[in-house]
Amino acid sequence: MFAIAEREPAALGAREVRIAVAYVGICGTDLHVFHGDMDARVTIPATIGHEMSGTIAEVGPEVDGWSVGDAVTVMPLAWDGTCPACLAGNTHICQNLNFIGIDSPGALQQYWNVPADVLVRLPEGVSLRNAALVEPVAVAVHDVRRSGLGNGDKVVVIGAGPIGVLIATVATAFGATVVIAEIDANRRAAAEQMGLATLDPSAVDQEAWVNEWTGQAGADVVFEVSGAAAAVLGATSLVKVRGTLVVVAIHPQPRPLDLHRLFWRELRILGARVYERADFERAVQLVAGGEIPADALITRVVPLTDVESAFQSLEAGGAMKILVNVGEDK
Amino acid sequence: MFAIAEREPAALGAREVRIAVAYVGICGTDLHVFHGDMDARVTIPATIGHEMSGTIAEVGPEVDGWSVGDAVTVMPLAWDGTCPACLAGNTHICQNLNFIGIDSPGALQQYWNVPADVLVRLPEGVSLRNAALVEPVAVAVHDVRRSGLGNGDKVVVIGAGPIGVLIATVATAFGATVVIAEIDANRRAAAEQMGLATLDPSAVDQEAWVNEWTGQAGADVVFEVSGAAAAVLGATSLVKVRGTLVVVAIHPQPRPLDLHRLFWRELRILGARVYERADFERAVQLVAGGEIPADALITRVVPLTDVESAFQSLEAGGAMKILVNVGEDK
Repeated sequence: MFAIAEREPAALGAREVRIAVAYVGICGTDLHVFHGDMDARVTIPATIGHEMSGTIAEVGPEVDGWSVGDAVTVMPLAWDGTCPACLAGNTHICQNLNFIGIDSPGALQQYWNVPADVLVRLPEGVSLRNAALVEPVAVAVHDVRRSGLGNGDKVVVIGAGPIGVLIATVATAFGATVVIAEIDANRRAAAEQMGLATLDPSAVDQEAWVNEWTGQAGADVVFEVSGAAAAVLGATSLVKVRGTLVVVAIHPQPRPLDLHRLFWRELRILGARVYERADFERAVQLVAGGEIPADALITRVVPLTDVESAFQSLEAGGAMKILVNVGEDK
Repeated sequence: MFAIAEREPAALGAREVRIAVAYVGICGTDLHVFHGDMDARVTIPATIGHEMSGTIAEVGPEVDGWSVGDAVTVMPLAWDGTCPACLAGNTHICQNLNFIGIDSPGALQQYWNVPADVLVRLPEGVSLRNAALVEPVAVAVHDVRRSGLGNGDKVVVIGAGPIGVLIATVATAFGATVVIAEIDANRRAAAEQMGLATLDPSAVDQEAWVNEWTGQAGADVVFEVSGAAAAVLGATSLVKVRGTLVVVAIHPQPRPLDLHRLFWRELRILGARVYERADFERAVQLVAGGEIPADALITRVVPLTDVESAFQSLEAGGAMKILVNVGEDK
């Protein structure tokens, strides 16, 4: 349940900035929090939200390079810098990662204090509304970069939710030819309206379809974004010899996987999670350059007073992406 | 069931050589054939056997570079050269691969005709007995090379059968520090006699052990060579952030895999199968250089008349590697 509370803004740390939050997007992880699935990690009451845009309202005394009025988004990761993963250079998946907005307070408030080093600059001319999509676009950029896909590759994305659609869009921007496999007709229709090709795995033999499409080779890269057990079991049959399956979706339970196919074709399966700074910067460019179908993705924008109904609407599957307008109307 | 038959040697093709077979090793795949598990692939009666050594007895008229008396082993793969995998350079896992000794007649005969391009030269001074190990060593070299492991890496090998022990040995030769996880006390003892470190996953908490061993990082590379469902489910917990799990064992059924761990740590899972020419050449060097504990691996050498009892002994788990002495005693 959500409640709106009036509070004094938190005191600003010397290395922090205070952001006047403009828009906050609601994502699948937020739905998990809302549902109570993440109570072990989230202290209730919690201020959540990590897909956002805003402008700097105040700058801490030890912060350099940022000014009041700068338009920003946030890469919401804080790592310890000392664990083996960090020491090996994988700070984004620090073994003790603080995901800001889940493990610590998030953006669903008018003023949000964050360490200056999580800020990402927005170029002039990007609307704050569209800039609230930068974080999920960065997820998609990370997944695509991690896959190693190249220009001309044939790619299958399993699942046409917001992240699936963004992966398909980013993979296309990277030069791939993409088809999205999605059983839900409404989601297929939404993806097609964004110019993406789709197939219905409940209506066609996916493996035969992909073999035909790829000259009997199989797909260069498959992204599993559905979270469904059946999708995982079928995914390996779509990948070419020495091709790649990227697991993006969260699968809370172990899933049966066709290890014989993995062995037989010497497949590669990669886990992909969150993003690195380079992903965020590329995501800003893609949003700024109009390569992300923001209008089609943003089903609607609601005021802070409507957050609870927005969550309910997303849970019912009736929306792709809902933004909360936290700031004054612009 | 095995039968010994007297037959006229097959006619020699222009691009073939006739090998006087010396020794043939029996491997797990042969046991599957013996069991009838591969009847869909193997036409009975079949002459099997693909781990072998011998000398050239006759050379076809269009064969260059080989002479009668040359000591050889065979890389038993014949690819079509035209499928998408071959055209992409992955001939060793051709989509229509002929695995010689399974899909076509093998080495368990006194004279074996093979295309000259599958021959691998044995250097002077390598005993034909030890050279019968080159093929399984090439499997291990392939698995280790595919893993990308580097000098100083910490590696867990799950399963201390012949391939597990060879992977551990080759990984050590490549500069890794290795432990073998094996529940069978006899196999652990055999591995330890070869100088390999072991742990018993039924007696210790594997994940805690590996974390302690690696300074809380996890293993750089884990090889799954056991074929056991429980091993697969536990394997992902042993791997460091962005580390690698190589699936070497044959898992005929889909196996539950911890995809959440794969995602959380951005793991990489690789299938690895057979070998490439470079793996065979490295394997010859390792056998010739005495880096493979041949005496410990070869439990015994039996005459052709004892093949059936050798298979039974291997099935009962009472032997690591049994060679069949096919030729005259040397």
